[in-house]
Order: sequence, then structure tokens, then C-alpha cells
Amino acid sequence: MAPRREQEIFSATLGLLAEKGYEGLTVEGVAERSGVNKTTIYRWWPSKAALLAAALIEADVLTLDPPDTGSLRGDLEALVGQVAALLTRPPAADVAVAALGAAVHHPELADVARRFFADRLAREERVFERAGRRGELADGADPMMIMDLLGGAVWLRVVFRGLPVDEGFAAEAVRTVLGGVSPERPRDLD
Amino acid sequence: MAPRREQEIFSATLGLLAEKGYEGLTVEGVAERSGVNKTTIYRWWPSKAALLAAALIEADVLTLDPPDTGSLRGDLEALVGQVAALLTRPPAADVAVAALGAAVHHPELADVARRFFADRLAREERVFERAGRRGELADGADPMMIMDLLGGAVWLRVVFRGLPVDEGFAAEAVRTVLGGVSPERPRDLD
Repeated sequence: MAPRREQEIFSATLGLLAEKGYEGLTVEGVAERSGVNKTTIYRWWPSKAALLAAALIEADVLTLDPPDTGSLRGDLEALVGQVAALLTRPPAADVAVAALGAAVHHPELADVARRFFADRLAREERVFERAGRRGELADGADPMMIMDLLGGAVWLRVVFRGLPVDEGFAAEAVRTVLGGVSPERPRDLD
Repeated sequence: MAPRREQEIFSATLGLLAEKGYEGLTVEGVAERSGVNKTTIYRWWPSKAALLAAALIEADVLTLDPPDTGSLRGDLEALVGQVAALLTRPPAADVAVAALGAAVHHPELADVARRFFADRLAREERVFERAGRRGELADGADPMMIMDLLGGAVWLRVVFRGLPVDEGFAAEAVRTVLGGVSPERPRDLD
């Protein structure tokens, strides 16, 4: 399938998800909105969940461009900013919050969420490889743990506490994870 | 209202939420299941959202008993374990995941989620007050940030990645937040 047509299908899929929720998302609806025949869509993606998984991972709107600022601190602050934007700025926020909310309620979407986060971690790992080469990471530091702490904090702050996440939050979250909160060591490396 | 009767209403509210979702939760249903008159329920809680907020914050099933192990590390590991249990062990997990999932989709529940997390943080703050008195916290360390990093990581790992969260996870998450991942300082304080 031509990449441009594929993006049109993904865009229709995510638009319908954001507007109508997972219950209201149908392959018929995607066919109608994208102007692509329903049987063509089914030939590429055998189910609604498969189509949604592909759209979440490959749609341009949710693409993660791993930052390369020259320092682990800068890269992590940029990643926190990307997660915050994903959860707060339309149209990505409507899609991301609808998809992640749906994953909680629909067991058949659990695998979609898993694949989405595995894909993002694979991209984010470049940040940690570069940091490792620059000697900025302690031995045994775990990229998944670092991203779960930072990404989870953004989710909790934005979605559950309803509080804003700004550059000050990103700097403080990253400072905490890089330096820790124990007094035995100075917290700020700058 | 008698505390025991109140707990019966809360239990009916959370049970219906877990079984039928927020859409399927009605004050009629709560009245039927708890055997308490509908008008009595409305006299105490003027809306479905108000009833759910009270149930989430005051029901015994979700009560948070802040740990007091004698060290910040021990207390934080216990708190991570409590959050993990809340999100994985029935019946609390069915309630918590349904409530938090619903908060994503229903703007009128945003305030309920905010109150739930504010209430929990107020309880958790005792852990940080004791740690501060013991000299275990760096100046300026922010309890809300620490809890959002740790609680968010559990949420992301359990709900979105579908991965288990065990004692090893709790220890590693707490070690990361206490000691940081920068190599300038040894990671393990033990």
C-alpha cells in the first residue's frame, strides 16, 4: 500500500477513536472516512485492534523523534516534554488519551498498548546508548525504569491530578531521576 | 449516617463501578444493592460523581495505611508495593482501574481523581515528614514529585506494559529515585 494512502487510513482510524472512543471505532467508518474500500483495509489489517495497533505505532501524529541535545539531561528533558505534549496538545492528546484509556477497559487492546510502549522504548534506547558512551549513566541503570518513572509521572500529573506540566516540571523530574533525593549526594549536577 | 451503613453504600458503589463501568453505575443501582433508600443516598451525595468521590476516598477497600518501617527506603518500597497491590489485586484492582480509566473519559470525574490523589498525598506526606526529621531527604525534595515518579512507574508498568511488578521492581524503582542514575555518585546507598 502506498505510504500516503496508509497514513490516510491511520488518520481516519485515530480521528474516529478520538471522536467516538474504541466502541465507536469501526472498519466501516474508517473505510468511509478514508475513501478506501473496506475489503482492502481488512486485507492489510485483519481486525479493528490490529488496525488500531498499526495506526498508533506508525501514524505520523504520534511519531516519536528521539532527541539528541548532546547531554542525557537535555535529552530526558526533551523526552518529558514530548510525553507531556502527547498527553496535552491536540490532536495527539485526544488520540493518546482515548487509546490509553481504552486499553484499560478492553483486554484485547492490552497487546496494542504493549506494542506501542515497546516500540517507543526501542526508539528511546538510542538516547541511553549515547549517554552510556558519554559516561553519563551509572552501571546497571535501566532505560525502561527511567522512562517508566518519567513517563508515568507525566501521566499521573496531567491525567489524574489535572495539573499542568511545564518546563519546570520536566527539569525537576529529570533532576530527581539523575541525582536522586538522598542528601548524601548533592542533588544538582549543574 | 452510621459508618457501617455508609461503608455498605460505598461498597455497592465501587462494586457496580467495577462490574458495569461508570456508565452502568446509577444511584438506583446503589440503592438496590445496598438496601438504602435512593432519596437517603441523594440527601448525602447530590450526584453520582459525588457519591463515587466519597466512595473512592473513604471506602475501606482503597484505604491507604502509610507505612512506617523506620527508613525512607523501606517506607517508599512499601508504598510502591501498596500501589502495585491496588492496581493488580482484586477486588481493589477492579475498582481502581475502572475508576481511573473512567476518569480519562469523563471530564466530570476529573475532579474526583484530583481529590483522590490529593487525599492520598496528604496521607503519604507523613512518610516524608518522618524522613525529613531523620535527615534522609535532600533539601527541596518534593513529596508529590517522588510519589508521581514512583506511582506513575507502577501504573505504566502494570496497566500499559502489562508487565508484573514485584519486590525487585519496588526496590529498583526506589533505589533509582533515592540515588539517581548519574555515575558521579554511587547508586546504592546500602
